[in-house]
Amino acid sequence: MNRLVLTALPGIPLVTAGDDLAALTLAGLERAGIGLEPGDVLVYASKIVAKAEGRTRRLDRVRPSPAAREIATVCAKDPRLVELILNESRQVLRLRPGLIIVEHRLGFVCANAGIDHSNLADEEEVVLLPADPDASAARLRQALAAATGVAPAVLINDSHGRAWRLGTVGVAIGVAGMAPLTDRRGTPDLFGRVLQVTMLGTADEIAAAASLLQGAAAEATPIIHIRGAPFVPGEGRLADLLRPRHLDLFR
Amino acid sequence: MNRLVLTALPGIPLVTAGDDLAALTLAGLERAGIGLEPGDVLVYASKIVAKAEGRTRRLDRVRPSPAAREIATVCAKDPRLVELILNESRQVLRLRPGLIIVEHRLGFVCANAGIDHSNLADEEEVVLLPADPDASAARLRQALAAATGVAPAVLINDSHGRAWRLGTVGVAIGVAGMAPLTDRRGTPDLFGRVLQVTMLGTADEIAAAASLLQGAAAEATPIIHIRGAPFVPGEGRLADLLRPRHLDLFR
Repeated sequence: MNRLVLTALPGIPLVTAGDDLAALTLAGLERAGIGLEPGDVLVYASKIVAKAEGRTRRLDRVRPSPAAREIATVCAKDPRLVELILNESRQVLRLRPGLIIVEHRLGFVCANAGIDHSNLADEEEVVLLPADPDASAARLRQALAAATGVAPAVLINDSHGRAWRLGTVGVAIGVAGMAPLTDRRGTPDLFGRVLQVTMLGTADEIAAAASLLQGAAAEATPIIHIRGAPFVPGEGRLADLLRPRHLDLFR
Repeated sequence: MNRLVLTALPGIPLVTAGDDLAALTLAGLERAGIGLEPGDVLVYASKIVAKAEGRTRRLDRVRPSPAAREIATVCAKDPRLVELILNESRQVLRLRPGLIIVEHRLGFVCANAGIDHSNLADEEEVVLLPADPDASAARLRQALAAATGVAPAVLINDSHGRAWRLGTVGVAIGVAGMAPLTDRRGTPDLFGRVLQVTMLGTADEIAAAASLLQGAAAEATPIIHIRGAPFVPGEGRLADLLRPRHLDLFR
């Protein structure tokens, strides 16, 4: 039977800089009674990857530029936070009260450069996104393979808003061991004709599914194990999921 | 343990006009050995709902308007199909080769008004979206509750492209028995402070998860049963998921 099972690994502690996420994953899998099998996927909330990698910044050490001060006034945001947002971005696309929509240096469009300042014991501390989420995913995959003999696909997910729909949804911002798109072009359909609908955003759908179990407070259950997800194994990276600018429908 | 289990109901036949989807669901649940429980969700591929409701059209009965002919030339599409797309839309937003981005009469932005012409034995036949997917979802929920004594949440999903990312993902276009957004504003975070990140697109994340098991040929496994999805029961509808035009970030 066609079944997909997602498990939030239990007992994952709050992560701090230098923590070994692969070791935390192995302990969580053991607590859940799960042995890795080929085809399994592990999804990590971007925030714990960033925290393990020391990607936190203290606002009281940031000196906002004039540009950051100006945007902060328009958006009613902390100018020090705006400075960090600008540093993490290639381009500012839209300004709204409380909201700066940017093209992130990683290439995707998102709000406030993905910088998070909830769930931290220290009000002055914020968490950036991981420096290179594809590389983080590849390292986790490699460490898990070395420990278990099975190399799972690994995604790092974050919650993004959408252009036309309300509510955030999980998307993949780091990929290892999976083709993030499933190309159905050329696959015969049920009647033997060639399908029109073409590329499935498989990694983003898996990221969204995992996000359901992570919830808003992704720190409580940040690591999700998934069995039964249909995906094409292989090389893959975040950039595969991003529209080249000439195909961007709304810029 | 925090676990989410999705099951593609086995043995669902190809659906045609007048078929009783609730009866097909009950038979599929029985084949899968699943008894409905409170909190369960059923997700239906929009195409089978539309087909059961007779929302198919024959291209050879369509007379394209001059506007449809003009757009068909720009987009290299069948002018009769363009005519149907225009009839199903409030506004054309963008034209690209092979692609007409519209605001659908149901309120969302999508490609080609969601009209599908794959997987049909008849090349001249296309499938529109259901006339009123919220009402379709409510009817299915009611019929399943009447038969089993348990009212599941029901979603109707479709695959949509995104503004900035490649690949289609499942989204909810019909909702019953669920608040499609989970409002986390005011929820204290792990440290007792109020969360900043606010509205989770829960119904869309569930729709995306279900889409993984439906695959591209959603007609083979169009009905997905889900247990363990965190959602707020209650009234809900598609419109809750759509940005009011004044909040639309990219128009």
